[in-house]
Amino acid sequence: MTLPAGNAIIAQSGGPTVVINASLAGVVEAIQESGLAGSIFGARHAVRGMLEGHLCDLGQLDQDSLNKIAHTPGATLGSSRDKPDEDYCRKIFEQLSTRDIRYFFYIGGNDSADTCRIISEVSQDAGYELRAFHVPKTIDNDLVLNDHTPGFGSAAKFVACALMGDSLDNKALPGIKIDVIMGRHAGFLTAASALARTEHGTGPNLIYLPESIFDIDRFITDVDRVYSKEGRCMIAVSEGIHNAEGTSITQMLAEQLSGSVERDAHGNVQLSGSGALGDYLARLIRERLGSKLRVRADTFGYLQRSFADCVSASDRTEARESGRAAVQAALDDHIGASLTIRRTSDHPYTVEYVPVPLQEVARKTKVMPASWIKDGCDVTEDFIEYAKPLVGPLPVIGSI
Amino acid sequence: MTLPAGNAIIAQSGGPTVVINASLAGVVEAIQESGLAGSIFGARHAVRGMLEGHLCDLGQLDQDSLNKIAHTPGATLGSSRDKPDEDYCRKIFEQLSTRDIRYFFYIGGNDSADTCRIISEVSQDAGYELRAFHVPKTIDNDLVLNDHTPGFGSAAKFVACALMGDSLDNKALPGIKIDVIMGRHAGFLTAASALARTEHGTGPNLIYLPESIFDIDRFITDVDRVYSKEGRCMIAVSEGIHNAEGTSITQMLAEQLSGSVERDAHGNVQLSGSGALGDYLARLIRERLGSKLRVRADTFGYLQRSFADCVSASDRTEARESGRAAVQAALDDHIGASLTIRRTSDHPYTVEYVPVPLQEVARKTKVMPASWIKDGCDVTEDFIEYAKPLVGPLPVIGSI
Repeated sequence: MTLPAGNAIIAQSGGPTVVINASLAGVVEAIQESGLAGSIFGARHAVRGMLEGHLCDLGQLDQDSLNKIAHTPGATLGSSRDKPDEDYCRKIFEQLSTRDIRYFFYIGGNDSADTCRIISEVSQDAGYELRAFHVPKTIDNDLVLNDHTPGFGSAAKFVACALMGDSLDNKALPGIKIDVIMGRHAGFLTAASALARTEHGTGPNLIYLPESIFDIDRFITDVDRVYSKEGRCMIAVSEGIHNAEGTSITQMLAEQLSGSVERDAHGNVQLSGSGALGDYLARLIRERLGSKLRVRADTFGYLQRSFADCVSASDRTEARESGRAAVQAALDDHIGASLTIRRTSDHPYTVEYVPVPLQEVARKTKVMPASWIKDGCDVTEDFIEYAKPLVGPLPVIGSI
Repeated sequence: MTLPAGNAIIAQSGGPTVVINASLAGVVEAIQESGLAGSIFGARHAVRGMLEGHLCDLGQLDQDSLNKIAHTPGATLGSSRDKPDEDYCRKIFEQLSTRDIRYFFYIGGNDSADTCRIISEVSQDAGYELRAFHVPKTIDNDLVLNDHTPGFGSAAKFVACALMGDSLDNKALPGIKIDVIMGRHAGFLTAASALARTEHGTGPNLIYLPESIFDIDRFITDVDRVYSKEGRCMIAVSEGIHNAEGTSITQMLAEQLSGSVERDAHGNVQLSGSGALGDYLARLIRERLGSKLRVRADTFGYLQRSFADCVSASDRTEARESGRAAVQAALDDHIGASLTIRRTSDHPYTVEYVPVPLQEVARKTKVMPASWIKDGCDVTEDFIEYAKPLVGPLPVIGSI
């Protein structure tokens, strides 16, 4: 087989991260170096930009510009929450074929892998040779077949640094503190709060993940036990915690409050961008354990995926390498693939990038293995050992 | 005059910062170097530890331990929100005199300066020679006679980095975003969000400070104007914003919700540790400008004063130097003083530490000068020039 001659397009989709632009830089520079494609288009706001022809020229970017972009949080091409169906993808295909685009690179989560798959199938049906590649991105770390995903390490570093500092604050002025962390179905990011633990008594005492049922009575008993013993209690809670019926506590609250909930194009209930869950849990603790208790709640919100000064070095490197690996997969004559990250060694920590068929990653969600969850309110040492190299060195602290 | 021979005590009070331990290290090492005092006691949880005799020995700390502590967020001795009256201070004085303590170093805000003043007066009335020094600390930057205060620069850096990243996130997925920032009476920290502005369209479009009356109709008009023009809107709001009657919006909400508000020992209404204000403003925008708008609110909470990986280098240096300067003031035979920071030059940025009488700083609050506030919803270039050297270099970003 010979590689089809034509142009390339790159887009970024879903929630941005601090390293998704590093993946973009990786794809662009690898195409420039290899001469894989003629023009290199960037699509503004993902599928929407492809549909409406809002493209920009990435081929002219020099190495200095690419390096700056690789160090910039957010999705610089713009992102989208649109979930294209087959009809939408057929329209995109028309735009792509009009511009003689033969290489399609889509940086995003499992829904983006699915969009990639549909567009690939639509073009195959039309007998048009399009090579479609998915470059993983998600702070949720929830893509199957991946040891971890670009974006997770940096968000996990933010969460660990936040819990480290916040628990030192809580040691100074003791009380009960709730920190609400992103994660709809997968608790990896909330679990990363455990990395804040040091010999100085920092980090969370209790960790609640969406993989376990959140039982309010059990929660109150846990908090009471820790607070009675320690005189203070740090709690890390995933925004995705849900009751035994599978209803998220946030959805329950939204329905109580307004009778309606906000959903995105994927049918997901809006969880982030509100302090409601933390405030509810704080109120609950005061009601059940004493109205005079010092109870505070913070919701980390968008900072954990966008903070401009807290990036894991290995995460940034891997995000860029994932982008480069997607171009290499194209050069290696893959018709389409998702570029997964596999860990090849723990000591020293090394990884490789393995192309797998798009449908093996698309729409599937990985969650924390049960063996990494302890007593429904903590994580195991195995998880911590797994996460450490992804986050990298954390601040070294002292105490008196 | 000769310096009294005896021991020293050091304590930390009020809300911790990421550099308050640098001030502690500065005081300890300067006493060690100078031999000012015999024993160096640390009081656990500030005045409470002094009252109850919960002390620790700081004299034996070596330079390596002090350096680690100087790089540790939070108040490692423990803090307190107690506001001692004269009777409380007399009891503390008894404890101090029993231990032959002649040098008293108190690291905190304007209430701490006042405690320092009362204890100084009580000991003078008793004819006991005690030298009392206040080392400034507050992320609010609200101490009079100071160009700025240790703790502010690092918190301001956190806010600037947060707004930079968050606005890049908002550019990628456009909407209206509210970020609630600490500051009861002084808006300096919220104003620091303006440092996130770059040529790439980052940073806040609107900034609301407690120095201006917060008018809801005016707020909605501002948001509508920006959103209509830009298709998105980033808003930085101080937690201390209040209506024309001087009632904080948070207090108004708490009273609506539960009929009661939480107050600290100083009579202040509890503002932080809840997402209520941000959620209220988000609801308001949806009600008035359209229920389908993408509106999100984050409250930075305790992260902005404790985050373990975002420290201004000049802030950390100055915090430590302030502690050392307090010991120097004692060596220079001052009876008591607050160590203020004065800026001696803008280019290059330099400061000096000037001891002033305690009563000149105690209980007084500095707010943003009116000349630095623009149209009730922004800050001037003069403020940005003032704040830049306190924060130090920010991430350099790119865009396409």
